[in-house]
Amino acid sequence: MKIVIVGGVAGGMSAATRLRRLMEDAEIIVFDKGPYVSFANCGLPFHVSGEIAERSSLLVQTPERLKGRFELDVRPETEVLSIDVEKKEVTAISQGKQYTESYDKLILSPGAKPFVPPMEGLDNADNVYTLRNIPDLDKIMDKLEGVSTGQATVIGAGFIGLEMAESLAKKGLKVTLIEKAPHVLPPLDEEMAAFVESELVKNGITVITGQSAQSFEKNGETIILEDGTSLQSDLTILSVGVQPENDLAKSAGVELGLRGGILVDEQYQTNIEDIYAVGDAIVVKNQITNQDALISLASPANRQGRQLADIIAGHGSSNKGSIGTAIVRAFDLAAASTGLSERMARQYFADVAVVHTTGNDHAGYYPGATSITLKLVFNSKTGAIYGAQAVGQKGVDKRIDILATAIKAGLTVFDLPELEFTYAPPFGSAKDPVNMIGYAASNLAQGLSDSVQWYELQEQLEKGKILLDVRTPAELLTGRFPDALSIPLDSLRERLDELDPAKEYIVSCHSGLRSYIAERILKQKGFKVANLDGAYSLYNNVRPKEILHD
Amino acid sequence: MKIVIVGGVAGGMSAATRLRRLMEDAEIIVFDKGPYVSFANCGLPFHVSGEIAERSSLLVQTPERLKGRFELDVRPETEVLSIDVEKKEVTAISQGKQYTESYDKLILSPGAKPFVPPMEGLDNADNVYTLRNIPDLDKIMDKLEGVSTGQATVIGAGFIGLEMAESLAKKGLKVTLIEKAPHVLPPLDEEMAAFVESELVKNGITVITGQSAQSFEKNGETIILEDGTSLQSDLTILSVGVQPENDLAKSAGVELGLRGGILVDEQYQTNIEDIYAVGDAIVVKNQITNQDALISLASPANRQGRQLADIIAGHGSSNKGSIGTAIVRAFDLAAASTGLSERMARQYFADVAVVHTTGNDHAGYYPGATSITLKLVFNSKTGAIYGAQAVGQKGVDKRIDILATAIKAGLTVFDLPELEFTYAPPFGSAKDPVNMIGYAASNLAQGLSDSVQWYELQEQLEKGKILLDVRTPAELLTGRFPDALSIPLDSLRERLDELDPAKEYIVSCHSGLRSYIAERILKQKGFKVANLDGAYSLYNNVRPKEILHD
Repeated sequence: MKIVIVGGVAGGMSAATRLRRLMEDAEIIVFDKGPYVSFANCGLPFHVSGEIAERSSLLVQTPERLKGRFELDVRPETEVLSIDVEKKEVTAISQGKQYTESYDKLILSPGAKPFVPPMEGLDNADNVYTLRNIPDLDKIMDKLEGVSTGQATVIGAGFIGLEMAESLAKKGLKVTLIEKAPHVLPPLDEEMAAFVESELVKNGITVITGQSAQSFEKNGETIILEDGTSLQSDLTILSVGVQPENDLAKSAGVELGLRGGILVDEQYQTNIEDIYAVGDAIVVKNQITNQDALISLASPANRQGRQLADIIAGHGSSNKGSIGTAIVRAFDLAAASTGLSERMARQYFADVAVVHTTGNDHAGYYPGATSITLKLVFNSKTGAIYGAQAVGQKGVDKRIDILATAIKAGLTVFDLPELEFTYAPPFGSAKDPVNMIGYAASNLAQGLSDSVQWYELQEQLEKGKILLDVRTPAELLTGRFPDALSIPLDSLRERLDELDPAKEYIVSCHSGLRSYIAERILKQKGFKVANLDGAYSLYNNVRPKEILHD
Repeated sequence: MKIVIVGGVAGGMSAATRLRRLMEDAEIIVFDKGPYVSFANCGLPFHVSGEIAERSSLLVQTPERLKGRFELDVRPETEVLSIDVEKKEVTAISQGKQYTESYDKLILSPGAKPFVPPMEGLDNADNVYTLRNIPDLDKIMDKLEGVSTGQATVIGAGFIGLEMAESLAKKGLKVTLIEKAPHVLPPLDEEMAAFVESELVKNGITVITGQSAQSFEKNGETIILEDGTSLQSDLTILSVGVQPENDLAKSAGVELGLRGGILVDEQYQTNIEDIYAVGDAIVVKNQITNQDALISLASPANRQGRQLADIIAGHGSSNKGSIGTAIVRAFDLAAASTGLSERMARQYFADVAVVHTTGNDHAGYYPGATSITLKLVFNSKTGAIYGAQAVGQKGVDKRIDILATAIKAGLTVFDLPELEFTYAPPFGSAKDPVNMIGYAASNLAQGLSDSVQWYELQEQLEKGKILLDVRTPAELLTGRFPDALSIPLDSLRERLDELDPAKEYIVSCHSGLRSYIAERILKQKGFKVANLDGAYSLYNNVRPKEILHD
């Protein structure tokens, strides 16, 4: 059998190497437009900062090594121009020379390319870059040499935009980050992203949200924003998202779907016989919503390539879809998410509930513990988990990986307290943050607790509810809600007569643990009361201007 | 309602505080023999080393704070002597004064106490300690002042024994660790525990396995081992396991089971009405074997206490059992396990298969990556996961926590590649070690690969199989199997004629990745071949004396 693969890296190379392990005698040819058929694309921003010091570290495999180990015929710098689906052959071009290559099975793994919006002056700009591959990186590194203490602008505050902003700042540039959405990291919800924004600002990044770059002037040296503001920029990274690389597929008559993604069935087969596709370019099912989705992540791409190899080799497999799990480091913080954000979940489902908790990455009595803010999005009736987000210095990856596993396995919030994790003081707590958020979500689902979200607070107070802050007087000095009633938790029982049974209360403390205890006391004493989810610490982070700091 | 709880710490205090949140008007009394009703028992060894510098850090709650916040009537240094099950009252003694206290519901949370085997001379020894609580810790700390550069002996190389050995070594003592089982960390399998043993030895601990301490002489200054050897010891820690603290329960007629554990139903009810029990003292179901088990871990104890509160308050809950997940740090290594070891699994199940993989805690191309050795125990037909173990410097807790979640959720090895984890170079890899071991296990279950375990190798070679080492000549210089045939993987295809199709082969490389590729090449070319699971690196660690080091 002769298998032709268009596009290396994650999906294509995973298919190629697995195919070889299953089909020793197959002829396997891998075409790639670029000079490097196997490189660490997620590592590119870290070479900019110098953290990955050697460019060569990013080059995972060479054609020679792939030939020696896997007997692969890898052809870099070779673009496939067209597919003749009748003759079952592709036309490729390398160093100006065209030729055809027949196939029995054709695998398209073209990936996704940076989305470049139409912007006036962009064509004349000579300092605006996108980052997808090694040649892109080389251009940025070249440019960097000349602007080492200048102004850099990153347009788009998604995962790669954030990594690039940090890397450029670490190189000594003065960085401005521009995001069209109301907050950085649009895949996360606003109050979780707010932690990241604080961290960026703390580290000297100028963050502009709710604004898009409209046009470029002076060969890109000036960027004009939506509101007319202009910025000087010596080096600009355009990182506003990606789109499927679908030109070849489209020209061959391969059916496209959502935002130009390649349509495949569960066996990765396109509408054309013997043409398959994997990776960032294909439309997949979001396993939570069961809707079409485009997910540009290395993990699903690798899995898809390997599964397609199993299918072609006759071992069977199928694409069950993806949930999307991602993490980004922003200086000393990590922010991660899996599944749906609250915003997304509310689009697709009724009865969406959310809960925020704060817990330590390991036992608080062992040195070095740091705090993790965790958010769970779930169904308030069934307990089904729709998604989770976490922000913190350490242990964020672990908690989101556990919750991603829980979602994939169909566990509910009621199952989370049952999970048994490794516990010794340097590694965790007897009640891990994942157990604790399971308890908190279960309390909501069982009606033991009612919650008010940070974005609902002002409206509820305007309706006449009273905010009761149960922190200690010393804590209030660090910042407080205007007009909140103050009764420290430990004297609440003896001061119940200060409350009016005819009023409705919202309780808050620092992180939500004490206010929940207060809520339970008050509920059992007949008061109408709800808990401010995430409490003061969450609110103060997302709406600091509404807090009184004496 | 009046609820009396005997024993604080994890199970008892979790029950008490949850009861208060659910039953504001209940009377809740907590008796504890010791002076501290809520302390961090898992932190005790870390105060010995000085890592947790302040003793006060270990004291989680005081009776005063528990009164103020939870309206609990906490009575430390009060021992419950007996239970009158007819009158529903307990007799307690405090400072020599006896009194009775009635109950509507009685919760026993006595915990487990150190097992002290009968040993000649132990009664006269004044330098032998067990470690269960703060008073035990205080005695050890007092003794330490006088023997700061002396000889210490730790008898028992389980989790606490290991932590104490390390802590005493960090204090400057010369430490000998004695374990009766053939290897340290008996809950783990031998080849995984071997990594820990190497780490202990590297850090100056003298490790003696397969030997028990028989008797003490000279007031404990001399310890005589099984084989007659004698050791000098200035300070000895006896840490050979724990047993349920069942005296009170037994005297009240509460039914006991496995090794004296308190028998309870799924609602934590003992055979006596209105008497419940939780924590280390109760017999639970191992969720994997469905057999009775005693599991002394903080996580299940906390969960049980909380569930019992739900049951008593009428919210319903049940004990679904435990799988047992644990971790221990040994100097720069961490070793963790969940579920059954290979040894245990083979006792309970047929068709048990195991696989070992080695992978990085995060992307190898990002600085600071360290290696994790992971072991999966599973059913070779159904793919059901029985257990997992991991050893490494970083990220061991994360992988075992994920696998513990997978076991609890009933996932199979075929589901592990589907899991989508957070990936950015500082945090993970596009194919996480958990995905990779899922692939490796699936290959075995699907018959794509056959494996030989490290303990089977010699026997297989004696039967005439040939060991083929596919590492490079440079790697062979660091150590090699005697009599192995050497063909580097990348020249295997062209040197196939050096192999005899009539023979059976076992392939090995460094960690098992390349040997699997070699196995697939050879299998497809018609050879009878199996893969040495874990390859050279695992074998060299558990049987270094059988390896040639030039």
